[in-house]
Amino acid sequence: MEGRKAFGWAARDTSGILSPYSFNLRKTGSEDVVLKVLYCGVDHTDLHQMRNEIHNTNYPLVPGHEVVGEVVELGSEVKKFRVGDLVGVGGIVGSCGECLSCQSNMEQYCHNKIVTYNDTNKDGSPTRGGFSSAMVVHQRFVVRIPEKLALDQAAPLLCAGVTAYSPLKQFMGSNKVLKAGILGLGGVGHLGVSSDKKREEALEILGADAFLVSSNAAEMEGAANSVDYILDTVPALHPLRLYLSLLKVDGKLIIVAAVPKPLQLDAVDIILGKRTITGSLIGSMEETREILEFWADKGLKSFIETVKMDYLNEAFERMERNDVRFRFVLDVAGSDLE
Amino acid sequence: MEGRKAFGWAARDTSGILSPYSFNLRKTGSEDVVLKVLYCGVDHTDLHQMRNEIHNTNYPLVPGHEVVGEVVELGSEVKKFRVGDLVGVGGIVGSCGECLSCQSNMEQYCHNKIVTYNDTNKDGSPTRGGFSSAMVVHQRFVVRIPEKLALDQAAPLLCAGVTAYSPLKQFMGSNKVLKAGILGLGGVGHLGVSSDKKREEALEILGADAFLVSSNAAEMEGAANSVDYILDTVPALHPLRLYLSLLKVDGKLIIVAAVPKPLQLDAVDIILGKRTITGSLIGSMEETREILEFWADKGLKSFIETVKMDYLNEAFERMERNDVRFRFVLDVAGSDLE
Repeated sequence: MEGRKAFGWAARDTSGILSPYSFNLRKTGSEDVVLKVLYCGVDHTDLHQMRNEIHNTNYPLVPGHEVVGEVVELGSEVKKFRVGDLVGVGGIVGSCGECLSCQSNMEQYCHNKIVTYNDTNKDGSPTRGGFSSAMVVHQRFVVRIPEKLALDQAAPLLCAGVTAYSPLKQFMGSNKVLKAGILGLGGVGHLGVSSDKKREEALEILGADAFLVSSNAAEMEGAANSVDYILDTVPALHPLRLYLSLLKVDGKLIIVAAVPKPLQLDAVDIILGKRTITGSLIGSMEETREILEFWADKGLKSFIETVKMDYLNEAFERMERNDVRFRFVLDVAGSDLE
Repeated sequence: MEGRKAFGWAARDTSGILSPYSFNLRKTGSEDVVLKVLYCGVDHTDLHQMRNEIHNTNYPLVPGHEVVGEVVELGSEVKKFRVGDLVGVGGIVGSCGECLSCQSNMEQYCHNKIVTYNDTNKDGSPTRGGFSSAMVVHQRFVVRIPEKLALDQAAPLLCAGVTAYSPLKQFMGSNKVLKAGILGLGGVGHLGVSSDKKREEALEILGADAFLVSSNAAEMEGAANSVDYILDTVPALHPLRLYLSLLKVDGKLIIVAAVPKPLQLDAVDIILGKRTITGSLIGSMEETREILEFWADKGLKSFIETVKMDYLNEAFERMERNDVRFRFVLDVAGSDLE
């Protein structure tokens, strides 16, 4: 049984080119929320999936996993949302609900989680993301957007934001002054030629205290053994030794981005300094709610460029050229879709 | 200025063959302890160093870093030991004393630590290990052997023992029942043909609850996501993916053995399960004291084979063939050295 009609853009083959695509949503279940999509963030993972670079893409593929929308319909059992509520959906839309991860608010680590697109709903239908006029999502995986947050600003928090927040919140409220590093400043190309331009952006626009170019050996040596933790966001092969050398004794490198080839790890580089490499996958629904509140309370600002659906192919080209500061957000409701 | 004469065995070249070697100890400083060596454990690292496999060996090399001895002389400022005390020395014999690691009882992570042999004392003399009749060691790096411990039994605790104890003590006293794994059962060859023999030893002699052969895919799959932490003692290249797959969400792989080639780390293998890889280097002096007390209090037993100095070359041959259960200990005082 199928639900209402939706209009989106889909990739049809490994060229990764997106074009208009209409389909039927799945029927609204008793615990489902139907939302009209307003905004959707544009992420590098979308491009990997559109081109089948992770080797598991099913076409046609409707990407998008930083979705902000308005509730337009509710399943009979849904009590915590009302029609008209402004809500968000991130990287996952389902999990078993019964395993230890699900029971302990870590549903992103459930072995049976369902990701927002290129996966299969419990009824057998394909999951489709936010590059589309509407979505149907189980209420567990829908969060309310705080009133103080601009809707386009909220979109990148739902995946990119919580991916940084989840592993870093363990360091918040520490009594010690901790020195943190962020490795990678948006997109695969961050280590390339634009590093000098990025220095200025990091220091002046983003408010970083310091900026290191990893190809500058003297700068890196000067910073050796000085950092408590590094958030590693680089989705391309990179030399762990170089970054581990920046960590103090007991320092942590937190990897949040999949890398297409194996990283090389010299055991001595972690033994000698009691260093840790740890992985972290997006964040839980609870943490998603937390970061939205945190952002709203502190009046923080994402750096985004808002574009319409028919600009998407060009947006991905520019993202690949590292020509976006720092994230495209799709104005879905403002696009001509039908 | 030189101190008393010592008689040991040394490697002279990359053949790694040991032969008798006499030398003068350094002069006893005000904070030094002079000990007559009674027993010394035999470790795989000794063999690597004897053959210059870590590419930093200075010949002649007197190995040995699990040293049990009797105090025979004390520097003028040493108050905490007396002549006749039974003491131990492990993998390091010096550190700066001033850095954060030194100030926080983690002197093994001091960037200026001095290792027990193949290093340089503060007076410029080479450090020499426990395959010798006597040693001079700064009192900070000397520990007392508890009365209840047999002296030959104590030797392996001073490096191998504390290397396991230091990273695992964080899990002791936990309220949860934790499932632990030990990866590698003594020596480089542990993954080889003798695995079936090792199963019996692990279960019946060492008291393990279970034993997995990593080449048995069905066994490994059956144990997926089941273990809280793994102590990885394998000093040879091994596939991290295989062992990471055994860990639960938030599980830890603790690497304590240097590996001659870089390990391959697929970022996804740690991201998806929020898994951690961490390194640990021997243990602190405080932890060395702790494990000796722990072993004495619990009446635990090391599995050793005691040999004389003139058997050393054969002992290393047997160690390489994986023909020792589980550690050789050298009876230095009982050997004919002069």
